[in-house]
Amino acid sequence: MGKVLIFGHQNPDTDAIGAAIAFANLQKELGVDAEAVALGTPNEETQFALDHFGLTAPRVVEKIAAETSDVMLVDHNEFQQSVADIEELNILAVVDHHRIANFQTANPLYYRAEPVGCTSTIVLKLYKENNIAVPAKIAGMMFSAIVSDTLLFKSPTCTQEDVDAANELAQIAGVDGNSYGLDLLKAGTNLGNKSEAELLDLDAKSFPMANKTVRIAQVNTVDLDEVFARQDALRDAMLTENTKNGYDLFLLLVTNILNSDSELLVAGEPREMVTEAFNVQLKNDRAFLPGVVSRKKQVVPQLTAAFEK
Amino acid sequence: MGKVLIFGHQNPDTDAIGAAIAFANLQKELGVDAEAVALGTPNEETQFALDHFGLTAPRVVEKIAAETSDVMLVDHNEFQQSVADIEELNILAVVDHHRIANFQTANPLYYRAEPVGCTSTIVLKLYKENNIAVPAKIAGMMFSAIVSDTLLFKSPTCTQEDVDAANELAQIAGVDGNSYGLDLLKAGTNLGNKSEAELLDLDAKSFPMANKTVRIAQVNTVDLDEVFARQDALRDAMLTENTKNGYDLFLLLVTNILNSDSELLVAGEPREMVTEAFNVQLKNDRAFLPGVVSRKKQVVPQLTAAFEK
Repeated sequence: MGKVLIFGHQNPDTDAIGAAIAFANLQKELGVDAEAVALGTPNEETQFALDHFGLTAPRVVEKIAAETSDVMLVDHNEFQQSVADIEELNILAVVDHHRIANFQTANPLYYRAEPVGCTSTIVLKLYKENNIAVPAKIAGMMFSAIVSDTLLFKSPTCTQEDVDAANELAQIAGVDGNSYGLDLLKAGTNLGNKSEAELLDLDAKSFPMANKTVRIAQVNTVDLDEVFARQDALRDAMLTENTKNGYDLFLLLVTNILNSDSELLVAGEPREMVTEAFNVQLKNDRAFLPGVVSRKKQVVPQLTAAFEK
Repeated sequence: MGKVLIFGHQNPDTDAIGAAIAFANLQKELGVDAEAVALGTPNEETQFALDHFGLTAPRVVEKIAAETSDVMLVDHNEFQQSVADIEELNILAVVDHHRIANFQTANPLYYRAEPVGCTSTIVLKLYKENNIAVPAKIAGMMFSAIVSDTLLFKSPTCTQEDVDAANELAQIAGVDGNSYGLDLLKAGTNLGNKSEAELLDLDAKSFPMANKTVRIAQVNTVDLDEVFARQDALRDAMLTENTKNGYDLFLLLVTNILNSDSELLVAGEPREMVTEAFNVQLKNDRAFLPGVVSRKKQVVPQLTAAFEK
């Protein structure tokens, strides 16, 4: 085994980057020549966390095969969310908390998925199973990842294991969890300085559903109206992305992190799947989804079921 | 969550049945309404182990959806090796030691794969992580599964973790590992009383490779000549299976458990993939593969690579 690159999904969020840093450090402690890399630059929330704990962002890679053949994935498994040349690489390990789809290997591997709110919660378990201490700075990134993925423990994806892990990590990192956590989330809601295309790319993933490709982006805000003031420009940008990338249907989930509700903006077809999945009527391409904050648990399965009906 | 059925792959071997029994018992201890079932009746080796430790064979099921929607898989993940209606079921957990392919879920799940020689080695870890003691009879089945999968620790798939787990389980079960282990393996080599079709079905799995379907069966013996005395009848039966089930290429791996070598019998096309994969010439549809005992590690990856070239 040569050098091993460890990375999270495209459009990295705080867990994709935090879990990569944490799992790479664990692998190094276990004697592996590992390096955390990323499939994109940190968003503002993630950069806030990196700055707060004095860490540098992982090097950005676009392809890997020229550099090494051995990789480990965190916080994703679906190939269309991974590095461009993933099919040429030897996947040694995956640590993840998502459904498994569009993923395969030629060889047996280490695969550790658990239905918890955040990959970093699982990575903390792996540190413990290997009797390795988590360094304070890395604990801070892992805590930030849990806050980010669970919207400060309010998402239905959040489990007691996430809460317990976060408490333990906050203590190691020496932060006041609630006040730092809210500052972290707010750092990610500064949308005014971003173009529509940037905003749609902040935290977006593609999903094959039936024979269609569905793109689902999510942005967090403390003010839904501020985002929807740009509705026409956003819809135009979504249609442009559909044409450019072959997406059929584009959903933008705008989540109010203070109220834990979301409003959906839809572009493309077949939009009746949205009606079917959430039992709502679209008005002016929009639908309000009370209590919905989790793409993974409250959007993807419902939409998948509608497509498969 | 209602009733949960737990099962290994089709054509169950000792690990498919042993790990299902062991993991179902663990789930019951954790409060889940779990039952071990099987996708076929035990082979003679597995029946020897069940009899030795006073356990009854799991109930055989063909479909599950009418009974429950919730399942956990052990010792496999590929849908074509699973229960017929797997795509209608909700997979809550997988414990496995194979490559991942042709597997997907709509929801996040618990997935625990490790590149060790036997699923039961991983199940023992799960007992420990949950602080649950393994009952002696079940420890006996798990020990039998490790002996079976690793050919008494001689297979290249066998890791130190398997050896350590086997030693611990033999002690709990109260058996002399080596003498019981050889008796167990010999119980599986009684091939004379089986028809060619039965022999081909003892331990067989299908693999999609490129756009072909490859069937790979394995039988253990203490006498290669005894098996190849039936070569013509075996080849005819393999061609019949190809036609009946749409397999393109059928490989029968006849493994001498005393010498740890195998001889391959090939029926169907494209047989040049065998030449390519193992760098051998076929003579009379046969090739001797010195040191090859593991389908998973010494046959499937090499053949997959040849098909993907």
